[in-house]
Amino acid sequence: MIDMRIQKVTDDISIQRSVDNGTEEQRKIVLEILESVRREGDRALLAYTETFDGIKLDRMRVSEEEIHEAIQSFDPKLLKVLEEAAKNIRRFHEKQRRETWITQDENGTILGQKFTPLDSVGVYVPGGTAAYPSSVLMNVLPAKVAGVKRIVMVSPPDQNGKLPAGVLAAAHIAGVEEIWKVGGAQAIAALAYGTESIQPVDKIVGPGNIYVALAKREVFGKVDIDMIAGPSEIAVLADDTALPHEVAADLLSQAEHDPRATSVLVTTSRTLAEETAREVQKQLEQLPRKEIAKQSIDEYGVIYLAPTMEKAIEVVNQIAPEHLEIVARNALELVPMIRHAGAIFVGRFSSEPVGDYFAGPNHVLPTNGTARFSSPLNVDEFIKKSSIIYYSETSFRQNAEKIAAFARLEGLEAHARAIESRLKKPVRPE
Amino acid sequence: MIDMRIQKVTDDISIQRSVDNGTEEQRKIVLEILESVRREGDRALLAYTETFDGIKLDRMRVSEEEIHEAIQSFDPKLLKVLEEAAKNIRRFHEKQRRETWITQDENGTILGQKFTPLDSVGVYVPGGTAAYPSSVLMNVLPAKVAGVKRIVMVSPPDQNGKLPAGVLAAAHIAGVEEIWKVGGAQAIAALAYGTESIQPVDKIVGPGNIYVALAKREVFGKVDIDMIAGPSEIAVLADDTALPHEVAADLLSQAEHDPRATSVLVTTSRTLAEETAREVQKQLEQLPRKEIAKQSIDEYGVIYLAPTMEKAIEVVNQIAPEHLEIVARNALELVPMIRHAGAIFVGRFSSEPVGDYFAGPNHVLPTNGTARFSSPLNVDEFIKKSSIIYYSETSFRQNAEKIAAFARLEGLEAHARAIESRLKKPVRPE
Repeated sequence: MIDMRIQKVTDDISIQRSVDNGTEEQRKIVLEILESVRREGDRALLAYTETFDGIKLDRMRVSEEEIHEAIQSFDPKLLKVLEEAAKNIRRFHEKQRRETWITQDENGTILGQKFTPLDSVGVYVPGGTAAYPSSVLMNVLPAKVAGVKRIVMVSPPDQNGKLPAGVLAAAHIAGVEEIWKVGGAQAIAALAYGTESIQPVDKIVGPGNIYVALAKREVFGKVDIDMIAGPSEIAVLADDTALPHEVAADLLSQAEHDPRATSVLVTTSRTLAEETAREVQKQLEQLPRKEIAKQSIDEYGVIYLAPTMEKAIEVVNQIAPEHLEIVARNALELVPMIRHAGAIFVGRFSSEPVGDYFAGPNHVLPTNGTARFSSPLNVDEFIKKSSIIYYSETSFRQNAEKIAAFARLEGLEAHARAIESRLKKPVRPE
Repeated sequence: MIDMRIQKVTDDISIQRSVDNGTEEQRKIVLEILESVRREGDRALLAYTETFDGIKLDRMRVSEEEIHEAIQSFDPKLLKVLEEAAKNIRRFHEKQRRETWITQDENGTILGQKFTPLDSVGVYVPGGTAAYPSSVLMNVLPAKVAGVKRIVMVSPPDQNGKLPAGVLAAAHIAGVEEIWKVGGAQAIAALAYGTESIQPVDKIVGPGNIYVALAKREVFGKVDIDMIAGPSEIAVLADDTALPHEVAADLLSQAEHDPRATSVLVTTSRTLAEETAREVQKQLEQLPRKEIAKQSIDEYGVIYLAPTMEKAIEVVNQIAPEHLEIVARNALELVPMIRHAGAIFVGRFSSEPVGDYFAGPNHVLPTNGTARFSSPLNVDEFIKKSSIIYYSETSFRQNAEKIAAFARLEGLEAHARAIESRLKKPVRPE
């Protein structure tokens, strides 16, 4: 039986979290796979797929017929739900789009920022039970909205050489046209270095197992990567208006993800603390994934009892949770005091799964306290900026001497001379 | 004698670049330093400073008097130049600031993005001849404009226990109040883990030697870091309107930075190609840092001769240079065709040092082809986003069933039940 620990908040709290950085052995395997794919291309991909996924493929690329079949076989009602979720996600991310801007001053100086979508992005989609259609939508759509022209999906096939219908349906809805049946570190290698059939990409996103994570870390620099996600986390910030059976259900929705997931309640109400602990026990027993949820709650579940809402908010900021729910009086008014959280779910009806699947904001969120400095996956991450600098002759002549002096202060004479070369008469007429 | 290689562009070009990922030995030293600082705090910092910088410090923190003295000793005319540069940098970066937004629909759904500055940022400033006041301004001011409250500067002291006056003056102008005399991997460790006297930060930026770079890579995840910069690069895109002595001067301004710097001219004019090669030879001989520039031009300098401007632009996009100058007819009209470049300097009077020191855009730029997916240092990198999700009872009841169905499609029963728990009657009145 699981009894969630209730802990009074006095001073600083210490948060237990689980991070998996892989073993030396795993790192060695990954380096080997990367090197093989680099050297042998498609041949290595097919061989690893046979070894790890148990299927000898004739063709790695998913055909249009396969996508068509998947959609035909898919529950039409669920397809509608996926489409509606995609619409919401697209709409929220469209609000993040930014336009190139330039400014001009009276001397004719033009300065600006040019926003350009990345040329190509690879999206990794895990296989097996971790193959989530929602993850396809959340990773593909921000890139699509950003204007990325080439989006490449990779995912390991099952033993019959197929990808799950839900994943293919979601890819189709999101507008992915290039899908390859290849997974693991070998898929990351193909995306980073390219093979005979798979062109390399500029950035790789999407969750994966430890081999995928280590491979992403290795190819970082050659290509960009998204964050390496840790186990999922939820913190519920609540006062005595919250309902214990709802809070408990939300804590468990996080705990069922992973034995290393973290579920925390921070509350000012002793009654809520005690009743929620009881509800967690009760609901846990009835869950299909109860073994996973039990381990998670047992090892990482805590209820913090804070003397005031201010103190409770301080605890939340210390945790910097991936997901935060606020169920309290005037919940919206507390939002500005939250400094660190990936996504903030406000009010009783904003249960975390609302955001996981449907509302529109991204479910790819900073874990492991990195909400202190990172953000949910968003359109900015698929767009790079270039500075634009145009100096007119007037603005140049006004500032040339100052710029040359600054360069000489730093001992960079050629910089100063590059400026001064423009002050001489041109060698031939312009 | 150096003769820049002129190469006709036919098909794809191959770009030679130098990347230093450190040796195993260097990595071992860095891990040792990180561990020592973690364990022994200030004591380790002082010991390493004595060993590496040759000075036994009584006090690591720079005092107000020291800053005051530095400013007094500094050329007042140069101080004015620094102040004007700072004003330009601040103004350009202020245009990048973004505001928290929320939207509301007719069902009462509220969605938004909350922008919050990081709590604290560490800025590394190299010592010795690489101690550049411009680098202080370029790294500190975007964080300042973002609204970061605590900005901590670290830099190794000289053998007299001092930091250069220019660096202290720039720090003062940029508004840095916390400066520590500590450098190398030990400074990075202090910023990431904290010591008795130095509180840890959330993000570390600024250039450094290979030990600093390796240390940043190691602490990444615990804190955020900026990109690890490679050697500097310039590409000049020019037609026959460009003046060879100016183009040559600009190529050399990059080459004097580092023997591994890359300077490239891409032109449609054979005359410009040949005359620039001659000018480079001539000007090189008169440079104080000619040994460095010579090595760089010799090893990494190339002139590409392209049959058309379209082809020339294609070459530039393949290079994805850190700095790009466009000196050609209708130069501004070519900017939209540039897909990959850190900063784009347009027209004859926009020599690269204009941007290095003065114009306002950041001089911390993506090197080594990473302009394909990265951006100049900017305000966004000191601000994180949190999603805001509020569902009203109406929006919740409209969508609850769909969300629960989506969760069940993915086999996450507790997610579905978290939604359905809200559909039951509350256990006690709200």
